[in-house]
Amino acid sequence: MVITSVKNERIKELVKLKDKKYRDKMGLFFIEGLDIIDEAYKSGVLKYIYVLDGYDNPYGDIPCIYVSYDVMKKISDMESISEYYGVCEKIDNDKVGDRVIILDGIQDPGNLGTIIRSAVAFNFDTVVISKNSVSIYNPKVLRSTKGMIFNINIVVCELDNFIDKMDDYLIYGTDVVSGIDVREMEVSKKMAIVIGNEGSGISKEVHDKCDKFLYIDMNDKCESLNAGVAASIIMYEVNRR
Amino acid sequence: MVITSVKNERIKELVKLKDKKYRDKMGLFFIEGLDIIDEAYKSGVLKYIYVLDGYDNPYGDIPCIYVSYDVMKKISDMESISEYYGVCEKIDNDKVGDRVIILDGIQDPGNLGTIIRSAVAFNFDTVVISKNSVSIYNPKVLRSTKGMIFNINIVVCELDNFIDKMDDYLIYGTDVVSGIDVREMEVSKKMAIVIGNEGSGISKEVHDKCDKFLYIDMNDKCESLNAGVAASIIMYEVNRR
Repeated sequence: MVITSVKNERIKELVKLKDKKYRDKMGLFFIEGLDIIDEAYKSGVLKYIYVLDGYDNPYGDIPCIYVSYDVMKKISDMESISEYYGVCEKIDNDKVGDRVIILDGIQDPGNLGTIIRSAVAFNFDTVVISKNSVSIYNPKVLRSTKGMIFNINIVVCELDNFIDKMDDYLIYGTDVVSGIDVREMEVSKKMAIVIGNEGSGISKEVHDKCDKFLYIDMNDKCESLNAGVAASIIMYEVNRR
Repeated sequence: MVITSVKNERIKELVKLKDKKYRDKMGLFFIEGLDIIDEAYKSGVLKYIYVLDGYDNPYGDIPCIYVSYDVMKKISDMESISEYYGVCEKIDNDKVGDRVIILDGIQDPGNLGTIIRSAVAFNFDTVVISKNSVSIYNPKVLRSTKGMIFNINIVVCELDNFIDKMDDYLIYGTDVVSGIDVREMEVSKKMAIVIGNEGSGISKEVHDKCDKFLYIDMNDKCESLNAGVAASIIMYEVNRR
């Protein structure tokens, strides 16, 4: 059977998942495009899949709902339509590994997605995200991660309380004014890097909880780097050793 | 005098500058926000400035046009309105320095802007951009550069012919399959790094003209980095020595 009406209950449910409150209530979120769905499948969180009529369900063990072109078009968030949507169980929990990147108020979806992608690339195992950051379930964030969000621990929390419990970690803040050149940073078994908001940097409360500070040496003409780039370079440097 | 009508010729001219053809014909482009206007002023390309009624013109030597709130709102490209617009002379030319980043088909405005910002930070002096890349005068590109576009040589050209003339440069391509780990790259006085399109990488024609190839070591789970991050890490590494 192919669903041809946007009034169908399954379609209404999918569209409602664009809303944060409904996502939280259901403990579900949706993703689009086969690349990212494939990563969700491999990590075991894919619950079911919506497939454009005429295409195959690549996963025999995942329930599949076939949908007409017109319905797919109405669902799609992008200019071009996707042939596949996946619905997944929410992935944030409270698991923390040894290499942690902490994000304090990141607002740009592209930056958050890019940082998650780079974190996996450079062998960080955990991304801790403040509640006032952009949602990890924002479609643009998910697209920018290129599916890497399913390969890392994701914690969304109030940073203040959370960092208090990380007392056996070496916690580095970033600060252009004071601190250690990132090329000379000390790498310890359990460590965390804090990246602040794009405009205002790290909040005072979190700044006070950092053990040391890092800066990236750069030309005086340039005041700062893009937050996604700065985070990626520091993680690259940790992984470089 | 304050302009209160969007039908005013000066306003019509400003709006027309959103169009690439008109920008090319006039040899002008516009920027918004005082941070970036300030960089344009310092580099000597600011021709005149549009100021929201009630605000001051910070540059005594630059002609100023005062504009009402309603008119500013209609001009603005962003959700919040700017108090200042600047009109500048186009800045791309054919000046090439010793440290060059070559961009082959970059499509995302945020990536292009971020790469220009990082290039200045890491002491690259020239950005060479293929004609099929996103326009450097796209408002989102300009915003992402944080004004750094006025602190670097910008060349927009057909890469194929341009690279042929760079025979005294060491030209590095990027390639995940073959090449040298970026940590072991050789840095020479005159060098260029080529970054390819976000999806398809470096075009065949340009690939054939590279002397050597670089890769960034990363976890197997991650296929690639964001193009802006990859470019920034390689420039960071060149500057790191």
